[in-house]
Amino acid sequence: MFSTDELCSLRWDPVSEQVEIIDQTLLPHTLRWCHLDSLPAYCHAIRTMQVRGAPLIGVTAAFGLAHALSEDASTDNLERASAALLATRPTAVNLRWALEQVGAAVQHLPPAKRAAAALAKARSLREEDIAHCERIGANGLQLLQSIKVASHLNVMTHCNAGWLAAIQWGTALAPIYKAHASGTPVHVWVSETRPRNQGTNLTAWELQRAGVPCTIVADNSCGQLMRQGRVDCVIVGSDRTAANGDVCNKVGTYLKALAASANAVPFYVALPESTIDWSCPGGEHIPIEEREESEVLSIAGLDAAGDIRAVNLAGAHSRALNPAFDVTPAALVRALVTEHGNFEASEEGLRRLRAVASAV
Amino acid sequence: MFSTDELCSLRWDPVSEQVEIIDQTLLPHTLRWCHLDSLPAYCHAIRTMQVRGAPLIGVTAAFGLAHALSEDASTDNLERASAALLATRPTAVNLRWALEQVGAAVQHLPPAKRAAAALAKARSLREEDIAHCERIGANGLQLLQSIKVASHLNVMTHCNAGWLAAIQWGTALAPIYKAHASGTPVHVWVSETRPRNQGTNLTAWELQRAGVPCTIVADNSCGQLMRQGRVDCVIVGSDRTAANGDVCNKVGTYLKALAASANAVPFYVALPESTIDWSCPGGEHIPIEEREESEVLSIAGLDAAGDIRAVNLAGAHSRALNPAFDVTPAALVRALVTEHGNFEASEEGLRRLRAVASAV
Repeated sequence: MFSTDELCSLRWDPVSEQVEIIDQTLLPHTLRWCHLDSLPAYCHAIRTMQVRGAPLIGVTAAFGLAHALSEDASTDNLERASAALLATRPTAVNLRWALEQVGAAVQHLPPAKRAAAALAKARSLREEDIAHCERIGANGLQLLQSIKVASHLNVMTHCNAGWLAAIQWGTALAPIYKAHASGTPVHVWVSETRPRNQGTNLTAWELQRAGVPCTIVADNSCGQLMRQGRVDCVIVGSDRTAANGDVCNKVGTYLKALAASANAVPFYVALPESTIDWSCPGGEHIPIEEREESEVLSIAGLDAAGDIRAVNLAGAHSRALNPAFDVTPAALVRALVTEHGNFEASEEGLRRLRAVASAV
Repeated sequence: MFSTDELCSLRWDPVSEQVEIIDQTLLPHTLRWCHLDSLPAYCHAIRTMQVRGAPLIGVTAAFGLAHALSEDASTDNLERASAALLATRPTAVNLRWALEQVGAAVQHLPPAKRAAAALAKARSLREEDIAHCERIGANGLQLLQSIKVASHLNVMTHCNAGWLAAIQWGTALAPIYKAHASGTPVHVWVSETRPRNQGTNLTAWELQRAGVPCTIVADNSCGQLMRQGRVDCVIVGSDRTAANGDVCNKVGTYLKALAASANAVPFYVALPESTIDWSCPGGEHIPIEEREESEVLSIAGLDAAGDIRAVNLAGAHSRALNPAFDVTPAALVRALVTEHGNFEASEEGLRRLRAVASAV
């Protein structure tokens, strides 16, 4: 199902020799591919969430650093460009990871060889990400297939951890795509994911594009649907996973994990190893990014004339607080689904993952 | 603070001899009072949620029935009008209760005396509601004052259970208004309450009008705020309370109750006795109203030109499911705050409430 470049969020255009991304801020109403042709364009794309999702941010940053080195391959510029890219999103751990990968690949090379080596590294990170996501899909599929259901499997997800968040397949959605491709009847409950509505804007859009049946629900409905037995499992992504298995992900994830636990619904977190922050002992150490209050107080949509229009939701003088992430304690997570297999969300589980990963 | 008719959602205009309501569908952008001058106008007001909130729906329906009897006081019309009003909102238990109160007050009277008796009953239900809410406020204040806080008290609420949902004071917000009036520094976290945004549209508006500091947050943030210790207690209303203490309230209430329980934050439910459905043994028997999917897929707000404008949030062909309520199990509720005192949310607690109420 991902044999073409159709269901893909970032591609290398061999003609222009530039990266093209889907501008995700225009979804679900307009599909537009954009060339990234300067370091500021890369930084802008990450900061304004034209690209978002831990894996895609990492790969985009890697290409951004390669681009910067193609203009000036000095060690000074390597450091300047890395710092600029790193500053775009404070929570995303594999933004740092990807930049370090590129840095390590080029820093001992003479400047004249750095640009080509950085680009090769960025392209290999892209291919690796696709391969990791496909393996996450295969590993998660085993968990989905072990759930007994009468007719079709009802999976709930939150935010967007699909091929729009990665390059292809996605993390949380990869097992769903695998199930769909294997003929398992699957239906997805998509929580809208206020305040930025990534569920409505991105997840519903990409599932529909891939032909997977889905229904959007208000975030508030997710507990009630579980109480009613209408959810067979929940699967979400992770922006950052602590070494004890605590998961930092889009705000609202924690509430779904609590409801899943209270209703004996399996709650899975799908993530590439690169999302694990081994230096972080527990979720309480993860800083929570607070974004602009305008994301809560106003919203944009398509008006009757077909134009994107922003409207104020709140009355004059209203104030809002907008934490973008929350932390789900490891105890609420049934399993971590990774490219290396499925592991318990615990210090011990992550140690096992590390052992498997280093044996590869 | 409620000595004038300023902070009030339904008033009797002695000049026109008609009921005036705030059209809550226009809030927070426009404050408009509307006369209700026919039974269809009353039904429309309840069905389209120009008035909403269990107590206000009940009082409005009582005035609606009185109005219908002023046009035709036959037993036939009493039954027809009651049925029409009852059909407007299936979940609201004190819609039925208020109609039965008016029915009982008039059915044994000769038709010529029914209209005046019904109006008198409706007006006394209105006064009673205000008195009950004020007592709920006083009882809830005791609970709020027992919470140890460093500087100010941070109370979280969901949906709207303030004076816009009742006549004055409100239920969940009454203790907050009492605290504010008594000089206790209080700040309210207002969850926006998707999909209809009653928190943003109504609660933030009415708190601001009464001078109480508040901050709007996405429903998704509520768990994270509790984990961070930024919430001292949660207090919500109830649309229907089962005889075992299970609470049916605006969808999303259950998730907040789970988060409160997981973080040892007291979770209170404020309700007038009329909201208790003694015939309902437990929450699993309460039918959950499912509203139109358009409430999830589109939204209205104020555009740059100052006009109310609806915008589509979802892409073409997206579908949504929209359960309007959820059930919070009694075990998650620290106390039920009523006009008769504060009670445990359990069969035993409600039996005690009934004993106290019948001794009045």
